[in-house]
Amino acid sequence: MTLLDRVKKGEIPEAVVKAAKSEGLKPEALAESVANGKAIVLARKGIKPLAIGENCRVKINANIGTSEDLADIKMELKKGEVALGSGADTLMDLSTGGPIDETRRAIIKKFLIPIGTVPIYEAVIKVIRNKSSLVEMTEDDMFDTIELHAKDGVSFVTVHCGVTKRSVEKLKKYPRLLGIVSRGGSFLAEWIEYREEENPLYEKFDRLLEIARKHDLALSLGDGLRPGSTHDATDAAQLEELYILGELTKRAWDAGVQVMIEGPGHVPLNQIEANVLLEKRICHGAPFYVLGPLPIDCAPGYDHITTAIGGALAAMAGADFLCYVTPAEHLALPTVDEVKEGVIAAKIAAFCADRARGKKYAVERDREISVARANLDWAKQIELAIDPEKAKKIRLERAPKDEAVCTMCGEYCAIRISKRALHLKDKPKP
Amino acid sequence: MTLLDRVKKGEIPEAVVKAAKSEGLKPEALAESVANGKAIVLARKGIKPLAIGENCRVKINANIGTSEDLADIKMELKKGEVALGSGADTLMDLSTGGPIDETRRAIIKKFLIPIGTVPIYEAVIKVIRNKSSLVEMTEDDMFDTIELHAKDGVSFVTVHCGVTKRSVEKLKKYPRLLGIVSRGGSFLAEWIEYREEENPLYEKFDRLLEIARKHDLALSLGDGLRPGSTHDATDAAQLEELYILGELTKRAWDAGVQVMIEGPGHVPLNQIEANVLLEKRICHGAPFYVLGPLPIDCAPGYDHITTAIGGALAAMAGADFLCYVTPAEHLALPTVDEVKEGVIAAKIAAFCADRARGKKYAVERDREISVARANLDWAKQIELAIDPEKAKKIRLERAPKDEAVCTMCGEYCAIRISKRALHLKDKPKP
Repeated sequence: MTLLDRVKKGEIPEAVVKAAKSEGLKPEALAESVANGKAIVLARKGIKPLAIGENCRVKINANIGTSEDLADIKMELKKGEVALGSGADTLMDLSTGGPIDETRRAIIKKFLIPIGTVPIYEAVIKVIRNKSSLVEMTEDDMFDTIELHAKDGVSFVTVHCGVTKRSVEKLKKYPRLLGIVSRGGSFLAEWIEYREEENPLYEKFDRLLEIARKHDLALSLGDGLRPGSTHDATDAAQLEELYILGELTKRAWDAGVQVMIEGPGHVPLNQIEANVLLEKRICHGAPFYVLGPLPIDCAPGYDHITTAIGGALAAMAGADFLCYVTPAEHLALPTVDEVKEGVIAAKIAAFCADRARGKKYAVERDREISVARANLDWAKQIELAIDPEKAKKIRLERAPKDEAVCTMCGEYCAIRISKRALHLKDKPKP
Repeated sequence: MTLLDRVKKGEIPEAVVKAAKSEGLKPEALAESVANGKAIVLARKGIKPLAIGENCRVKINANIGTSEDLADIKMELKKGEVALGSGADTLMDLSTGGPIDETRRAIIKKFLIPIGTVPIYEAVIKVIRNKSSLVEMTEDDMFDTIELHAKDGVSFVTVHCGVTKRSVEKLKKYPRLLGIVSRGGSFLAEWIEYREEENPLYEKFDRLLEIARKHDLALSLGDGLRPGSTHDATDAAQLEELYILGELTKRAWDAGVQVMIEGPGHVPLNQIEANVLLEKRICHGAPFYVLGPLPIDCAPGYDHITTAIGGALAAMAGADFLCYVTPAEHLALPTVDEVKEGVIAAKIAAFCADRARGKKYAVERDREISVARANLDWAKQIELAIDPEKAKKIRLERAPKDEAVCTMCGEYCAIRISKRALHLKDKPKP
């Protein structure tokens, strides 16, 4: 029996109890959300269970993994370490270069948190490494790779089941500025178009569900047709894919398989709330995992900031899980430092949303740091900062003469003067 | 006659024509917005006129200026240069250390854009440098300093006219976590409390209007009681001050003086839209100049990012002018590099809002960079980036083997595959 099967029968598995505890939720409440599909609990053997969805704190994913041009397992492990140290809740291994299996296994071994992958990458790369074209990839290549990843111990896989004849048709009928920007989506679109066959991940969805049931693997239904330009957002192809994912969500639930839905992408700020609403409605309340959204296209080098803006708004509107974006997005594979910047920006977005939604941890943290500020307690303020290391560095490299204040205001510190003014305990002697 | 006098009489001054042109607006339309107080045009002699408000692109201000601990005019001029190079529209000189008059004059001389100041700083510092307490500051000290700045050529001044007996009373009645965090606000609150006299900037508002009329100086009605903690947001003291600013706005307009309203501060994400609405309603549609907002308190070191999130949302809701915040906020006076980071984050926020509101420059820029991406035209993509220098650096330091793609996807470039798939002009040979 899968975790979802058990919860639907009224059981409360230990993993749900643990995940509920770390959310400050009652186990019964989380179990009900999971039973309804509105939350998922990722709970592979040996990892700390993690809940994503209804009433949970907003979660952060960091993508790591090699590429053809940069394949260094040690560096990817370092990225994972830095990502978790900065607040990521999950890692996705998106390796496409070097020894892919070895990289994935090293990541799963080292990090005892939910790990996700996009198995279609490896399925395609194996075919290409065998000197063949990606259109030669077979149905078995796809499903076998998914099962291989499940056996290795990943907690969730992205599967682009919604890239189908029907949704690709929409894309051809209503052309975009930027076509398909999802790698998995582009692989499958080419496969479908060339072979004039349906996507097996859609047509043979039951085979996928069997694998998922067997390994209690959560499916992250991928948005292969997500917009890659704000000009392509919320278009017919994107929505067609969403409808398909909505259908498949119900089928997965019926089979006892947990599901989340991946979402855009590049979306103008005024369309973000609508995108969250659409996902929640069309996909029956399944958790929403957003890859962005990026409200503008023109800030490569700073897309961690654009994403923080879009992600905060999406999460406030109900998105449950934010995929980080680093400053290197659209330009290159990120460095270790850029991974850190990306995670912290996503963490800030999640915090903003959780603060707005009244989540206790965020409300309390803001209260505590405000009290530390009121007390001019710098050590405490730094300790409570989202990145104490950076806050400390800025403060120390410009140490003020008067240790109670900072170099911005010096003796004209508003906080100090305001205390004097409002309490009037120590009226200044003129 | 002031610019506002002339516009109210139906004239369209040259400055309005020029400002309208750079906004892509009809001069008559901008003149009408100015006449109604919904936009202002800053147009001191020798500078390029700048419009802020209704139908205008969202503007960015960068604060520069010395402090007691760090007083280096050259460095502040360098900050101004970098800020303008990164997209700031105005500079505010907030100097509180070293030769304050000399610093201000150097900034006004070097940068031919609207410069703002907060004269109360200098008024207080002069008193303190004369070995006196700030409560000894006279009414003349305040007004004379404002006039001195106007004579020197500043375009706008922050005046904390809303810190009054009435609003400070509210603060004492409903205490906050963090009291007053505005320097000017704290100075005036202490002055009022100690002397048990009314704030001259409020009580003698006509004297202020006389100076403003004489020099055609715009007033930025300061939010001395802005919340400095998300827990203090939208409280009685903040609103009391806003009501007072609303009253004064009408009086300024009647006197032919242009006005904008300064706004919070630390405000949770779910209260930002309401704050913009309140300002627009209570202050009769006057342009809103926001100092943030910061939706969380706990990210010192990254407050350019928190502010970008809050600023984007505020601007989408109708805020007109964003004051940047640097990564050093709450910790220290910013460095030149931090000034750049702050301006770019604010610029991104403004862009996100303008893109959402359909402003042509933003819509077009996103279209052009998306087309460059579709064409894998890297030179063009970098040229169109908000900071071409940084985008280029990331790309070059990790140059891919295949120059058409990037090191993230390498040969598995979705854009390239998607083109092949959707156009099917060059079916891959298996």
